[in-house]
Amino acid sequence: MRIDGHTEIIAHIGYPTHAFRAPLIYNPWFAKAGINALVVPMGCQASDYAPLLRAVFSLSNIRGALITMPHKVSTVGLLDEVLPGAQIAGAVNAVRRLADGRLQGDMFDGEGFVRGLRRKGFEPKGQSALVLGAGGVGSAIAASLAAAGVAALKLFDLNPQAAHALRSRLLQHYPDLKVSVNDADPAGLGLLVNATPLGMNASDPLPIDVSRLGADTFVGEVVMKVDMTPFLKAAVQKGCRVQIGSDMLFEQIPAYLEFFGFSAPTPDELRQVALR
Amino acid sequence: MRIDGHTEIIAHIGYPTHAFRAPLIYNPWFAKAGINALVVPMGCQASDYAPLLRAVFSLSNIRGALITMPHKVSTVGLLDEVLPGAQIAGAVNAVRRLADGRLQGDMFDGEGFVRGLRRKGFEPKGQSALVLGAGGVGSAIAASLAAAGVAALKLFDLNPQAAHALRSRLLQHYPDLKVSVNDADPAGLGLLVNATPLGMNASDPLPIDVSRLGADTFVGEVVMKVDMTPFLKAAVQKGCRVQIGSDMLFEQIPAYLEFFGFSAPTPDELRQVALR
Repeated sequence: MRIDGHTEIIAHIGYPTHAFRAPLIYNPWFAKAGINALVVPMGCQASDYAPLLRAVFSLSNIRGALITMPHKVSTVGLLDEVLPGAQIAGAVNAVRRLADGRLQGDMFDGEGFVRGLRRKGFEPKGQSALVLGAGGVGSAIAASLAAAGVAALKLFDLNPQAAHALRSRLLQHYPDLKVSVNDADPAGLGLLVNATPLGMNASDPLPIDVSRLGADTFVGEVVMKVDMTPFLKAAVQKGCRVQIGSDMLFEQIPAYLEFFGFSAPTPDELRQVALR
Repeated sequence: MRIDGHTEIIAHIGYPTHAFRAPLIYNPWFAKAGINALVVPMGCQASDYAPLLRAVFSLSNIRGALITMPHKVSTVGLLDEVLPGAQIAGAVNAVRRLADGRLQGDMFDGEGFVRGLRRKGFEPKGQSALVLGAGGVGSAIAASLAAAGVAALKLFDLNPQAAHALRSRLLQHYPDLKVSVNDADPAGLGLLVNATPLGMNASDPLPIDVSRLGADTFVGEVVMKVDMTPFLKAAVQKGCRVQIGSDMLFEQIPAYLEFFGFSAPTPDELRQVALR
């Protein structure tokens, strides 16, 4: 890695920074690909965020920003343009400066999830899907599934209001989409997604009763603390094909890189260079 | 080099960035020394600078800032504390955040120059010195020579007002120092310094008539485009010991590193790892 006066930077903004993974993946990739760019971890608390974001985008060598906790939601209100997926998610995790100087934000969690499905041969178009959890990542995945053309979407959240609010946001952008709320029966689904944090801790219950889960359902996970969560293990026992949580991460990085105007590697190329 | 969520950053702020050298020296040194820190080039124009500086120092992982053109002078007015060398120079090239949150600035061009003299066995204390050029770097060198205890200081500038103004700033901090202005006779000097840009271009005249320069005078240079400028070549022909321009650069980096709270390498260790 050679950092010099021609290096372009991608600000990785969040707080705390200790668990940041993006610098460990992007920077080795930039070095390998001969791209003179650098993901720079920037620890920023909520009270300092709005002026920092503006200042960072005043730099002549800024290429974009990766936004993480606790700023994903507040960023929506700080930009000139928020793309539909981020509007539905109510959160932004990538910002770029357009040629006319306006700041534009998008959300790539859902895009990464759907890219992973397709790479595994599962085409969401026309399928019925159940998304468990209507928080940030669940909303992002629901938005991307809607964009991908699912025929029907079921939303479940322990807080029914969150699921209803997500349904409303989806229908603003996809008025013809069939969206039902708080039917958590997995029978007959094309796709089942855990977008709750359940599975982070060993003592967590499963996010759903899997007794009626059939072998034809593709099962995806967002928890990436371990590859095979208890939920995915249960799904595999049922004969289901599955997608692990970190696939969403490695699938979305090429989407970010394209958003920032770089040519994109494959997720496998990223996994090969990523540092632990 | 491993950049992760524990990496501390040193913002290198200026515009344009293309000629930045610090990232090419500091970052290989940090990598070699196992220090998890990163000099990040940040291109910032004058109109964006004040809010950028504030924002950068709101970051939780900021360790300091290196300030270069066109911001060295304006930084003086943006800080809570400016150390004497920077006050005399009228310019700041390093900023750190103190434990109480205040921003403190200093100027290390002169410090680097004097460290280089001492490493070559020339002790400025008690000497008479002539500094050619009363701009930013000349002022910084004059301030550091005053701090080092020179007995007499002669200042020369094609603009006599600049030399007189530097004399006034010096006397505010060193009221007993013997400072004369616009006597450019090099005869009998202990130290002669070119702190003008003359020597950057092959067609430049020498900064001074060297016919009365004696072999006992130590001669220093700030131009670093080539090691042996015509001025230094003329001094060597007179039998003088000399210091090349880039010695000032490599001697000042350990001073910056100490200012930012790192343990410091030797200039030779830096030269060995520096990228071109």
